[in-house]
Amino acid sequence: MAKSQPLFSLLLFIFISGTISQSIIQLSRDHDVYCNSWRFSVETNDVGYWDQVPSRCVSYVQDYMTGDGYRSDSEVAASYALGFAKTVEIAGDGKDAWVFDVDETLLSNLPYYAVHGFGSESFDELSFDEWVDLAEAPAIKASLNLYKELKQLGFTVFMLTGRSEHQRNATAKNLQLEGYSDWERLILRESSDQGKPATLYKSQRRLELVNEGYRIHGNSGDQWSDLYGFAVSERSFKLPNPLYYIP
Amino acid sequence: MAKSQPLFSLLLFIFISGTISQSIIQLSRDHDVYCNSWRFSVETNDVGYWDQVPSRCVSYVQDYMTGDGYRSDSEVAASYALGFAKTVEIAGDGKDAWVFDVDETLLSNLPYYAVHGFGSESFDELSFDEWVDLAEAPAIKASLNLYKELKQLGFTVFMLTGRSEHQRNATAKNLQLEGYSDWERLILRESSDQGKPATLYKSQRRLELVNEGYRIHGNSGDQWSDLYGFAVSERSFKLPNPLYYIP
Repeated sequence: MAKSQPLFSLLLFIFISGTISQSIIQLSRDHDVYCNSWRFSVETNDVGYWDQVPSRCVSYVQDYMTGDGYRSDSEVAASYALGFAKTVEIAGDGKDAWVFDVDETLLSNLPYYAVHGFGSESFDELSFDEWVDLAEAPAIKASLNLYKELKQLGFTVFMLTGRSEHQRNATAKNLQLEGYSDWERLILRESSDQGKPATLYKSQRRLELVNEGYRIHGNSGDQWSDLYGFAVSERSFKLPNPLYYIP
Repeated sequence: MAKSQPLFSLLLFIFISGTISQSIIQLSRDHDVYCNSWRFSVETNDVGYWDQVPSRCVSYVQDYMTGDGYRSDSEVAASYALGFAKTVEIAGDGKDAWVFDVDETLLSNLPYYAVHGFGSESFDELSFDEWVDLAEAPAIKASLNLYKELKQLGFTVFMLTGRSEHQRNATAKNLQLEGYSDWERLILRESSDQGKPATLYKSQRRLELVNEGYRIHGNSGDQWSDLYGFAVSERSFKLPNPLYYIP
């Protein structure tokens, strides 16, 4: 009996650690199933307004954003946008337009969010503006490719961003450094736009384009507020973004 | 040397089968990443019109529909719908309304699609109508719970389905058998609605409700054509459906 004690303890230890690791694996699987569903509800806009990534989903969001998921989702969305773009008959009068949002659409702020909790912290305008001024946001590769293809096809490209007019230089510099060029207009919030919901501000600016005779065929954005409202495009392309929500 | 031959063959066999199974695992992982992204683009409506599940994603869709994913996505979407519903002030005049689609919203046709290739076959109206006549489609549990909660909260519930008037009896019987009761009206396509895009037909019927004085707070549906158009609800709740697309 005294001899079998260590063996028994070892077996007990193995059994308990096995149970614990199985529980951890199960818990992690449950989190993944839930967080996948949370992301579904975010991306379909079922959630509506939300402020922070749920704490149980922060490491899920980190894995998604830094792993294959985000890259692949961006690529597949861009492929459907391009598929549609190729069906558009370009009149040649320069009025066939495509509208792009900027943040999380053409440029990625992942380096900023990686040091700000992957969406788990409330938005801090001051530190984000400092990041914008650095003009170091990398291009989302799938969007850059789409952008170039659209230019090749003959689309007139507008950028319509929630960033403010005082961020024009940093934004234009960042876009150029990352390979974007020959856009028709970069539209930013003027002082009269401050405080407007994004849906209203962006709809008003699209309406101005429509009134100028542009035919907005496509619109790419990571927020439903980029795509909804009035003067909407013929086809909208929602890009993934589980980091933040803009009403 | 002769002695080591069998050992060498065994090691070679293990090496090759290891490589093959690793390749199979990698391929299956690539498929999952792609099919996850395809589903993202389907659910955000980036794909637009589509006819069949891509062949490489059929087993992915089967796993999703029969595993935890679909159930969890339905539950989380329903939880956000309920969260919103609880914020609505019910006036008590019976005019606070919620609109539900039927197929893949209140009732699941998964038993039908399980024997029809999980969305990989073109839609066959004849066999689907036979299935509808059986009145055996199970409730989607999350929707049934939501339905009951909404009734408790005092909402007037409308069902607005793309099914035809001649399917009224089978549909009502099926809904009742599965636990749905006390709906205000079950609206089906009349002969004058045949051939109309779902978005138009459903918008027209919602407009009739609005003209009758109903305030449509919420709308639950698995298709964007359930939710878009005019006379839209205050908040829309997109349920998952990677099996088929209705324009």
